[in-house]
Amino acid sequence: MAPTDLDPFTAHGGRIEAARAMFGGEGWIDLSTGIAPWAYPVGEVAYGRLPDPDALAALEALARSAFGVPAGREVVAVPGTDLALRLLAELIPARRVAVVRPGYAGHAAAWSGTIGVSGDEIRMVDANLIVLANPNNPDGRVFHRATLRGLAARATLIVDEAFADADPRESVADADEEQLIVLRSFGKFYGLPGLRLGFVIASRGISAALRAMLGDWPVSTPAIAIGTAAYADRAWRDAQRRRIAEANDRLDIARTNFPIVGGTSLFRLIEVPDAYVLFRHLASRAILARPFADRQDRLRLGLPRDLIAADRLAEALEEFQS
Amino acid sequence: MAPTDLDPFTAHGGRIEAARAMFGGEGWIDLSTGIAPWAYPVGEVAYGRLPDPDALAALEALARSAFGVPAGREVVAVPGTDLALRLLAELIPARRVAVVRPGYAGHAAAWSGTIGVSGDEIRMVDANLIVLANPNNPDGRVFHRATLRGLAARATLIVDEAFADADPRESVADADEEQLIVLRSFGKFYGLPGLRLGFVIASRGISAALRAMLGDWPVSTPAIAIGTAAYADRAWRDAQRRRIAEANDRLDIARTNFPIVGGTSLFRLIEVPDAYVLFRHLASRAILARPFADRQDRLRLGLPRDLIAADRLAEALEEFQS
Repeated sequence: MAPTDLDPFTAHGGRIEAARAMFGGEGWIDLSTGIAPWAYPVGEVAYGRLPDPDALAALEALARSAFGVPAGREVVAVPGTDLALRLLAELIPARRVAVVRPGYAGHAAAWSGTIGVSGDEIRMVDANLIVLANPNNPDGRVFHRATLRGLAARATLIVDEAFADADPRESVADADEEQLIVLRSFGKFYGLPGLRLGFVIASRGISAALRAMLGDWPVSTPAIAIGTAAYADRAWRDAQRRRIAEANDRLDIARTNFPIVGGTSLFRLIEVPDAYVLFRHLASRAILARPFADRQDRLRLGLPRDLIAADRLAEALEEFQS
Repeated sequence: MAPTDLDPFTAHGGRIEAARAMFGGEGWIDLSTGIAPWAYPVGEVAYGRLPDPDALAALEALARSAFGVPAGREVVAVPGTDLALRLLAELIPARRVAVVRPGYAGHAAAWSGTIGVSGDEIRMVDANLIVLANPNNPDGRVFHRATLRGLAARATLIVDEAFADADPRESVADADEEQLIVLRSFGKFYGLPGLRLGFVIASRGISAALRAMLGDWPVSTPAIAIGTAAYADRAWRDAQRRRIAEANDRLDIARTNFPIVGGTSLFRLIEVPDAYVLFRHLASRAILARPFADRQDRLRLGLPRDLIAADRLAEALEEFQS
C-alpha cells in the first residue's frame, strides 16, 4: 500500500498527540483503541525500590486465581503481552506459523513468514503454530472453547485473550492442553495500558524458558502493586463490567445507521464506503477513530467514556450522513 | 554451595521484606544495593494512555545527548538492562562468551556456558563475545576506555555502564566501534529502580533487531515521562553527584576499620573474615547489607542516605568490632 498521511493512525491506536498536531482542535475524545476509558484508581506509586520477588509471586498467584488457571500450569507476569509475544517467537521458532486475518498486527510481526488464514480456515490449516486473538481484533470473532482445545491438540496454539476480562465466557485460561499458551492483558480492561503488565499462561517448560528470558525484574514495582490491588478487587471488576455494558448501549445508539460488522464489548467495527473520509471528518470534530491500511471500508470505534462523549460522537456521525 | 537461609540475600539486593520477615525489627536501612538513596522527584503519573511513539523517540534523543552517543549509533530504550541483556543473548548466540569474575550474576545467566575470567585476563581471552561492567560490580574495578576499545576491535563487547552516570569518565557510550554494545541504567543514579528503564547503545544492525524483539511498547508511559524530565534536568543531576560524593565521605568514615577492597561511588566492598556473621549482626540492627554466596569474606555496603543512617551503620560496625 502507498504511504498516506494516515499511516500513524493505521499503525496504532492511541496517537492523540499526532492527531492534535495534524488536525488541531481541543478536547479530543480517543476512540481509537480497545482500552476501557475508566482507569482502575492508582494510589501513590513507589518507584524507589526494586520489584520484590515475593510480591511478584503473590501477584502471579492472584492472577492465577482470577483467570482460573489449573495446577500444573504456570502464570508468568510480563511487561506487556506485545513484548511477550516476541519473546515466545524466540522460544518457539516454528516452521509453519498461521495467524488469523484480519488480526492484531503484532501477531504477524513476531514471526517471519506467517501464513494468514481466515477464522473459518483455521481448523483446516497445516501449521505447527497457530496464533489468534479471542475475541479477535478488529472483527470481534469469537472462537469457542471446544474449537481452541481441538486446535491445541494438534499444534502449538497461542490465544491472545486481551479482551477476555470484559467477557471471559470463551476463555481457555482454565484449560490444561500442553501445547496451549494464553496471553492476558491487564491494561485494556483496567484502563491502564501505560503500566505495561500482562501474563502468559503456559506449560512448565515454556514458562521456565520464558522466565529465563525475562530475567529477575520482568515488571515494574507499580505494576506489581497496582495489579495486585486490582485482581483482589472483585467489586471494582464487577462495576467496570457494568460501566462497559452501559457504554456499549450508548455506542450502539451513537453510530446511527452504519452497519456494525464486528466488535467486542470494548469496541465496534463499522462499515463505511470510505473510512478515511469518515476518519478525517471525526478528526475535524476532535474524535480519534481507528482506520485500517488494509480495509479502507472499515472503521473501529472504542467506548465513549460518558454521555457527553457519546453525544459528540452521535452528532458527528449524523453530520457526516446528512 | 549448600543452600543457606541467606540465599534470598545473596541472590539479590533490595530484599527488605524478606529481611523484615526473617529478622524482625523496624526502621530498616537498605544498604544492600548500589542504588542512589535519593530518588528523582516523580510528579503525578499517568498510566491511562499507551506510551506515545513520538515521546519515546524524544526520550531516546535526550538520552543520546546525555550519554554523548555519536551519529550513526542507535539508542534503544528498554524495560531494564537486565531484560535487555537476555534479549541480546538471543540476538548474539556467540559460541565463546567470556564474562568478568567476580561480576553481576545476570551477565553469566544470560548466556549458557560462559567462560569466567578475571579483569586481568580479559585482554588475553579467546572469545567472540565479552561481557563486563564498567565500573565492575561488586569490586569496582575500572576498565579504561582504550582497553575497552581494543577489546571491541576483536570481539563483540557488551559494557554494562550501570554505575556510569555517577562518574562517566571511562564511559564508552561516545565510542563508535561497530562491535561495541553499551548498556545504561536509569534507576541506579536516579534512585528509581522500580521504574524499569534502561538503554542499549549499539550499531544500527543490532539496534534494529533489538527493536523488533521489543515490539512497539518497550517501556511504560511513566518511564518515558520521568526519564525525559530527568535527562533534561542538569541541575538535579549535578546536585545528585554532590549528594553521592558527600555520602561516600560518610560511608568511608562509618565503616571504621574494615579494609575496603573495592567499590564505586554508589557502594563499597569491605573485607571481613566471616561476612555472614557481620551480615546477621547488621540485620539484627535493621541494616540490610549485601552478602555473596561465592565470597563469604566480602560484604557490600550501599550509601547511607543521611547522617542518621550513617551513624547507625557506624555504631553497628563498632559494636561488632568491640
